[in-house]
Amino acid sequence: MRLKPLIAMLAIAVSGTSFADEGMWQPHQLPDLESILKAKGLEIDAKSISKLTEFPMNAVISLGGCTASFVSPKGLVVTNHHCAYGSIQYNSTPENNILENGFLAKTPAEDLPAAPGSRVYVTETVTDVTDKVIKGTEKLSAKARYDALEKNEKALVAECEADKNYRCNVYSFHGGLEFYLIKSLEIKDVRLAYAPAMGVGKYGGDIDNWMWPRHTGDFSFYRAYVGKDGKPAEFSEDNVPYVPDSYLSVSAKGVQEGDFVMVTGYPGRTNRYRIAAEVDYVFNEAYPKSREHNSKYVSLIEENSEDGSKARIAYESTIAGYNNYIKNYGSMIESFNKGTMYERKKQFEQDLTTWINSDRKRKKQYGTVLNDLSTLVAQSQQHNQRDRMLGYVHRSQMISTAISLYRLAYEQQKPDSERESGYQERDLPRIEAGLKRMTRRFDTNVDKAILLHFLELYAALPKQERFAEVDKVFKLENGFDNAKHSALLDKMYANSTLNDEAVRITLSQQAFSELEQNQDPFIQYAKAIFAVMKAEEDKNKALAGKLQAARPQLMSAIIAFNEAQNKPVYADANSTLRVTYGTVGGYSPQDGLVATPFTTLEGLLAKNTNVDPFNAPENLQKQIKAKLYGDYTGGMNTVPVNFLSNVDTTGGNSGSPTLNGKAELVGLLFDGVYESIIGDWDYNPALNRSIHVDSRYMLWVMDKVDNAQNLLDEMKIVK
Amino acid sequence: MRLKPLIAMLAIAVSGTSFADEGMWQPHQLPDLESILKAKGLEIDAKSISKLTEFPMNAVISLGGCTASFVSPKGLVVTNHHCAYGSIQYNSTPENNILENGFLAKTPAEDLPAAPGSRVYVTETVTDVTDKVIKGTEKLSAKARYDALEKNEKALVAECEADKNYRCNVYSFHGGLEFYLIKSLEIKDVRLAYAPAMGVGKYGGDIDNWMWPRHTGDFSFYRAYVGKDGKPAEFSEDNVPYVPDSYLSVSAKGVQEGDFVMVTGYPGRTNRYRIAAEVDYVFNEAYPKSREHNSKYVSLIEENSEDGSKARIAYESTIAGYNNYIKNYGSMIESFNKGTMYERKKQFEQDLTTWINSDRKRKKQYGTVLNDLSTLVAQSQQHNQRDRMLGYVHRSQMISTAISLYRLAYEQQKPDSERESGYQERDLPRIEAGLKRMTRRFDTNVDKAILLHFLELYAALPKQERFAEVDKVFKLENGFDNAKHSALLDKMYANSTLNDEAVRITLSQQAFSELEQNQDPFIQYAKAIFAVMKAEEDKNKALAGKLQAARPQLMSAIIAFNEAQNKPVYADANSTLRVTYGTVGGYSPQDGLVATPFTTLEGLLAKNTNVDPFNAPENLQKQIKAKLYGDYTGGMNTVPVNFLSNVDTTGGNSGSPTLNGKAELVGLLFDGVYESIIGDWDYNPALNRSIHVDSRYMLWVMDKVDNAQNLLDEMKIVK
Repeated sequence: MRLKPLIAMLAIAVSGTSFADEGMWQPHQLPDLESILKAKGLEIDAKSISKLTEFPMNAVISLGGCTASFVSPKGLVVTNHHCAYGSIQYNSTPENNILENGFLAKTPAEDLPAAPGSRVYVTETVTDVTDKVIKGTEKLSAKARYDALEKNEKALVAECEADKNYRCNVYSFHGGLEFYLIKSLEIKDVRLAYAPAMGVGKYGGDIDNWMWPRHTGDFSFYRAYVGKDGKPAEFSEDNVPYVPDSYLSVSAKGVQEGDFVMVTGYPGRTNRYRIAAEVDYVFNEAYPKSREHNSKYVSLIEENSEDGSKARIAYESTIAGYNNYIKNYGSMIESFNKGTMYERKKQFEQDLTTWINSDRKRKKQYGTVLNDLSTLVAQSQQHNQRDRMLGYVHRSQMISTAISLYRLAYEQQKPDSERESGYQERDLPRIEAGLKRMTRRFDTNVDKAILLHFLELYAALPKQERFAEVDKVFKLENGFDNAKHSALLDKMYANSTLNDEAVRITLSQQAFSELEQNQDPFIQYAKAIFAVMKAEEDKNKALAGKLQAARPQLMSAIIAFNEAQNKPVYADANSTLRVTYGTVGGYSPQDGLVATPFTTLEGLLAKNTNVDPFNAPENLQKQIKAKLYGDYTGGMNTVPVNFLSNVDTTGGNSGSPTLNGKAELVGLLFDGVYESIIGDWDYNPALNRSIHVDSRYMLWVMDKVDNAQNLLDEMKIVK
Repeated sequence: MRLKPLIAMLAIAVSGTSFADEGMWQPHQLPDLESILKAKGLEIDAKSISKLTEFPMNAVISLGGCTASFVSPKGLVVTNHHCAYGSIQYNSTPENNILENGFLAKTPAEDLPAAPGSRVYVTETVTDVTDKVIKGTEKLSAKARYDALEKNEKALVAECEADKNYRCNVYSFHGGLEFYLIKSLEIKDVRLAYAPAMGVGKYGGDIDNWMWPRHTGDFSFYRAYVGKDGKPAEFSEDNVPYVPDSYLSVSAKGVQEGDFVMVTGYPGRTNRYRIAAEVDYVFNEAYPKSREHNSKYVSLIEENSEDGSKARIAYESTIAGYNNYIKNYGSMIESFNKGTMYERKKQFEQDLTTWINSDRKRKKQYGTVLNDLSTLVAQSQQHNQRDRMLGYVHRSQMISTAISLYRLAYEQQKPDSERESGYQERDLPRIEAGLKRMTRRFDTNVDKAILLHFLELYAALPKQERFAEVDKVFKLENGFDNAKHSALLDKMYANSTLNDEAVRITLSQQAFSELEQNQDPFIQYAKAIFAVMKAEEDKNKALAGKLQAARPQLMSAIIAFNEAQNKPVYADANSTLRVTYGTVGGYSPQDGLVATPFTTLEGLLAKNTNVDPFNAPENLQKQIKAKLYGDYTGGMNTVPVNFLSNVDTTGGNSGSPTLNGKAELVGLLFDGVYESIIGDWDYNPALNRSIHVDSRYMLWVMDKVDNAQNLLDEMKIVK
């Protein structure tokens, strides 16, 4: 566990030497970091950043999974191209392929509706609700505790969402040590205002994903709309652009190497405080196994669908997703094996234990926490092979759909507030979208081949690790036989109608009593395993209840230990608003190689092959060749395209505004380098680099390539 | 055609700015470059480098295909590990795997014989024999000219080789404008003294081949032996170490970024003066086609031999060789498409033409040379598809062996001096070695699959581009039919005994009249096509004779044109001794990335996976972890492993000593970076970088890892 020595940091910061810029800070922590921030280059008041309803934080918004920011008084929102990708695709047709060619609304009237379900969330309040969540759970343990916490959280959410204009969530911090209720205005009418061509926005594609050098113009513009009363409203012609309380200025001057930058956004999830035993399991077993099975998953798809066939097209995005994971896990395993994270975790736990045991009171309070957590972690890993293999079996879309439909009907027998999370009224649109999506992402042969393969692996588990109910349906009692089981699956697929969208939608509206009678073989499978799976789920919830009690204890000890050394502690990322700061700069990915902090228009041109994904628009190439840099060089003798900094980010931060010391937008965070992927577990100051699209490139493309003068006019450009 | 403006260069050199260090200079040209060399950092007299029998040039030797140098008064020779690879492999057994584990002779008595045919050549004289070679050819043209030149050259070689201690060759410079007779002492008893483990000498293997960052300890030591009389002698227990006239000191201090370095050695072949039409054909047709066919060749081997099977093992080195070409051509095509070589050639030819035509006398002398050469070049490309496809058909080892045996018997009917080059007495050992080598590198199924594939491509040529004689043997008159031709080949292979080594050796000793009667189907094929192939060969010789007349004319014009601008001209590489100089430094392989000039022990360790080819010896890893750097840091806080410089090198330079300004050995040239592969055609100052193993790493491994104190003691180490 690496945590920054705050005092040492201050000393170093003042001396001007660069140091690790680890930390995804909650806004309310920023005033404590003010002296560091000032020393590094923050020019505005750190306290202002801690206030969510003031500039600049009130300009930073969530799209749910991505971050964005307001950049005009007319509700103009900038985010990553890959965050708006679904909406661009949604509006794309063979006749008007805006995904390929880009799109610009010349007036707001030309804005296109974003993909269904697109939202803009403006966080308005963050309330510490720890007491309310914990209330009544203190004496409970295991599943009772889990259920009580769930109930308290749901009640808080329901109360908060009584105002239909808001979306509310309770987030746990430090593994359950603290809980915050976050209330966000939910803007429901989101429209696409501008997207550059694919050859800008997705330049480099999957090949360059997580890579440096990078030349991706990963930006796009939405516009948020509300009703005439200024309140969120569903899409309507009568809606008007939302007027945000404030918006960011965009810098045409950009940054230089060594400049201070900060990124505000909604990082998704990190695991920086996991114990050594968890790290050991994840990196030495879970990730390597997942990588192996995911690779097999992709080859099964490829072997069972011809290149360019309808089946292959249906699975293209699945393949891309899996390949993404394979690359991701590959990087993390590589970094783990090269690094010292495990050794440092062990050392930290030793130091912590020594510190705890050196004081009688501390020993009494924390003496067993590490041990308690280790025991629970070991329990949670007990059936990991079985859980993993059954998990893959259940990735068959026929099975997962059946299970989901069956559970939905089951939960709908209860009052909404008592239903399992994910099956409440608020979740129904998402479930329906999934049932519809399957239509375009499913092929019987592929699904069957995958199911057959993982059934074989599941069948190879020792009998006591298998479920009799699963064995019975799939006739695995006497082991796996390829011909026999292939025939069995053929029959099941032939007798099922779950591959029919209309059937799925109908079933999603059926009562439980009715669905139970359905003779679809996959529904029958869901029914057969329901009780045993529910029992497993309850066991897991009981374990989760225990973990929810143990983990805050350990975090409490860690925080106290660090406090004693004057070190502040930031919480793991949990999709809530955070601030991270750092410096523009390169790194050495390998001995003998240095990644320099900026890429340029000329580098983009050198990389261009006119073949996707290195296929920049002709007009863009022409402007580069003509060196029409405009006012966007910021003192360089070209226009920079992307830049590197050491800010501490992760998925969910995509689209986050990168701000300079004056809180002007100098870029958009869109990726991290390959060596930083392990950053979700461990921030390595030497290798952790985030990749930003430079505001100068964004403005240059808007001005010189796409002629988006109308948008530039409504934005505030700082020259 | 890029040539350096000498005067401008001098000015720049004095001002200290770095500039292109293009040029593989003949030693006699060095005094002309003295002021540049001094300005860059040469401390010894440039004139001394021009004298082959003086230090340091008399310490630089050829191994035939590789370069090496003497580094002790006892005949100790240092070269690349990959240059001694055959000898290390030759002495390796499953019980004593010195290829894997390395080898050190603790005394000369323990030296191991190098692979049969290993030689050390010490160049003693270089004589301009242009007049003698040209004599009597002036009025001849076409084949007559070709034959006359051949005859003159052979006579010179025979006369020179009358002293059996010498190997002599006539080399043509500037496409036949000048001819030099090079006389080298041929040391025939070469022994292996020391080779580090594979995990040092071939660290990074084929993956890192042509790549930076690099961590290869590509060095090994031979020892040259002669008879007790000091004259070259075949291997004998009684032989004694050769005492060279001088030897190089080895620097333990090494070089720093920006330091002057020069490399002396035997670069093989470059094509820097080819005309635009040739460049166009090679990069837009020949290389892309070769890459395509070679890739197919490799997949045919792989598809027809199981992983790890005897057949696959037989072809491993063939696969490696082909993959090497595929990567090589890939890089060149990539560089060509990104670069401007073709445009610059066109421009140069225009400038040259303008200059020629601007003077009546020049116009008379050179007015038609470019046109004449272009016409001949077009002629030589006329049947390139046919020649390419038939070339691949003849790569079947059964066919190539049959053709070679048939030709050998044919040539042996003549007196030795009249035989075709490659079939003279002096060539017999090489031919026999090839006939034996086939035993370990051949599999019938693989050979047949390759032959079948390329017969199909050959058969697809228009009828007028095919040879009736070839069509007849392979029954291609009515096109190709896979089943039919597969059966035909099966029959041919079944009826042939050329896959038997004893048969091949026996046939290699048969008289032509006897061989002609041999009913082996492949020998019969060789017989059937002999006359038509001979006629083609004569046509090609006639064309070569014309080219040999035209090319020197153009080179003469180019030299005059450059002379007029005060620019010296170096000749294309032709396996003769050259000197190139430059500076230690990195480069930017891509926008956003910089290759720094040194790699380090720590980088080696970080790259190490303990899996081949990143499998450094345990002891080496231990020494790195313990930071036991010894006296080999040269002021860095570690030991550098490899370094980059901009010296101008190519294949054949491998093993060349890299010298500092005092002519101390500071490294061994062993490779170029990926972006420099096109350097054989075009030197790009921004991207052309050679890779050297650092003398400090070599000494450190010898001292700290392999305990080669005995060798260090006989060498002169400069601390």
